[in-house]
Amino acid sequence: MPELRLDPLLQRWVVIAPERAKRPMELHQEGRLNEVGFDPFAEGNEAHTPPETFAVRNPGSAPNGPGWRVRVVPNRYPALQFEDSLKPPDDLFDQRSENPFYQQQSGWGVHEVIIECPHNEASLCRLSRENFCEIIEAYQQRLLMLKQDPRLVHVTIFKNSGWQAGASVRHTHSQLIATPVIPMTVNQEIEGGERYFRQQGQSLFHELVRQETATGSRIVLETHDFLVFCPYASRFPFETCILPKQQKSHFEMVSPAEKEELGGVFKNVLQRLERVLSNPAYNYVIHTAPFTAPELPHFRWHIEILPRITGVAGFEWGSGLFINPVPPEEAAQRLRDSISHGATQ
Amino acid sequence: MPELRLDPLLQRWVVIAPERAKRPMELHQEGRLNEVGFDPFAEGNEAHTPPETFAVRNPGSAPNGPGWRVRVVPNRYPALQFEDSLKPPDDLFDQRSENPFYQQQSGWGVHEVIIECPHNEASLCRLSRENFCEIIEAYQQRLLMLKQDPRLVHVTIFKNSGWQAGASVRHTHSQLIATPVIPMTVNQEIEGGERYFRQQGQSLFHELVRQETATGSRIVLETHDFLVFCPYASRFPFETCILPKQQKSHFEMVSPAEKEELGGVFKNVLQRLERVLSNPAYNYVIHTAPFTAPELPHFRWHIEILPRITGVAGFEWGSGLFINPVPPEEAAQRLRDSISHGATQ
Repeated sequence: MPELRLDPLLQRWVVIAPERAKRPMELHQEGRLNEVGFDPFAEGNEAHTPPETFAVRNPGSAPNGPGWRVRVVPNRYPALQFEDSLKPPDDLFDQRSENPFYQQQSGWGVHEVIIECPHNEASLCRLSRENFCEIIEAYQQRLLMLKQDPRLVHVTIFKNSGWQAGASVRHTHSQLIATPVIPMTVNQEIEGGERYFRQQGQSLFHELVRQETATGSRIVLETHDFLVFCPYASRFPFETCILPKQQKSHFEMVSPAEKEELGGVFKNVLQRLERVLSNPAYNYVIHTAPFTAPELPHFRWHIEILPRITGVAGFEWGSGLFINPVPPEEAAQRLRDSISHGATQ
Repeated sequence: MPELRLDPLLQRWVVIAPERAKRPMELHQEGRLNEVGFDPFAEGNEAHTPPETFAVRNPGSAPNGPGWRVRVVPNRYPALQFEDSLKPPDDLFDQRSENPFYQQQSGWGVHEVIIECPHNEASLCRLSRENFCEIIEAYQQRLLMLKQDPRLVHVTIFKNSGWQAGASVRHTHSQLIATPVIPMTVNQEIEGGERYFRQQGQSLFHELVRQETATGSRIVLETHDFLVFCPYASRFPFETCILPKQQKSHFEMVSPAEKEELGGVFKNVLQRLERVLSNPAYNYVIHTAPFTAPELPHFRWHIEILPRITGVAGFEWGSGLFINPVPPEEAAQRLRDSISHGATQ
């Protein structure tokens, strides 16, 4: 059983998960993902994954058989203990440490894989805009379902693409981890938004959109509902953020019109990154408010895309002060110029 | 000129340093450090580095010539703009943004390399205990010197060993970066210590030593003045911390007796990690209070050693929630058992 432990100094939760050591890691030693071999995520191989928890399916197809376009399944090597039922015994869930200095609780939660297409394709941005919309639909549906369990307080949706970004399977996929605690970064972002709201009397994200639109130099793409930009204090070269223009703290509350538009925006940005950086390894993460919070006027959901083209060394780990050799204004310009007139595919 | 930029949400400083893109990076593409070739850090090649700022020298030897055992020189590819004089023009240093939303200031500071031995040796832990004491002496002397500039507020001393940990030169060396701002992690640790002191009326570090000594299972090594342990909420497998038993917030105030003992402790721990993990890549970082702070009763300097045997992927980057597959109790036991009776050379 994994264990959640809280660092007493930084109030930072960590998952201690000995089971994770057993998952296949040969790829990291070889330095690249295996191009051939058996693909457990491919259509027709549904029996090789745990039963699906959600799928976008063709009419008439049956669960856990062929005929799907996006499929969500539990991770075989979960970071947190997966339970088939969303309702594990309360005593398991609530098992906490009696030592007030070193707090811990059972590492129960949900760790799922979102398989983004039925065929063995490694690059998400080669899928169609419709595929992107269906992937976003899958994210939303899983959030809405997991939100029903009052003991889960937050879900992180993320993608590791390329071995340098931590991927262990070539077939394009993203993941979600639902936790009974709020991860440190989520807490820090919400506190930062609260502090700004208290001091300035308005939303930091509102002001951020105003500043970026006025300056223009860090904008990659702007649509009716979304602003895509390279953040002013980017930690990584070509770090890119997708931010909705309208206030909304919870990603699962995204509207049908926003989902439709986000599909095209997301594909467009990933295509630009692929062109400029020649198919880079990257991570993306959806930052969203905890289930336990109401709509927060000082926080807004957003997607952070982090190309992994530079390493992270001792200085960054120790100080939290990142050194970025590519000014975000230069990155944004190259991303803007990469596709003329916003034409995609 | 590099630029320091503050993220408005997280209050996180970032260095935007376009000059860094020009430094030699071929090693990262090859995936290992070049074993042969010219060594600019070797004795006799002093003319190939900028002039030294400090050295531990044999009697009668002259600066910037042979006859040294530890040598400190400015980094040729600095993350912050190095100035020969510790006193750059005030107007350069104080150049700040007028935009209150996006704060910035000139990326002036000091970035130096501590060359840990005169011969081409890649592994620090193969040096003698006396070498370790002289390296620690060099760290202290540089801190005391840099502290004299009232515009420098903090120094991070760190090491990247092995290419997976970000090293770009094989010859064993560490680095220091002196900044005119306090890095985010340093601020967070000091605030965490303050919060605990306010709530509990005592030092968190004092209680930590008490807890670890009482439990014993996470202790690697204990001496008169130091406790070496794998932290309760370790983010990385075999993460190890060297903590002084006596309260002291500033590393530069370490006593002669502590330095003497720390040399042996440091070598011993790195030897244990090398044996158990077969010469792993690793980072270490000295966490110390800012120059601008007086002795802080709620913070204590410490050294964090982070083996880099697992990758960091999207979930960790996005959430700050790390997944560690090796329980620190297991790591500590293997490190304890690796050298019998604490015997080292």
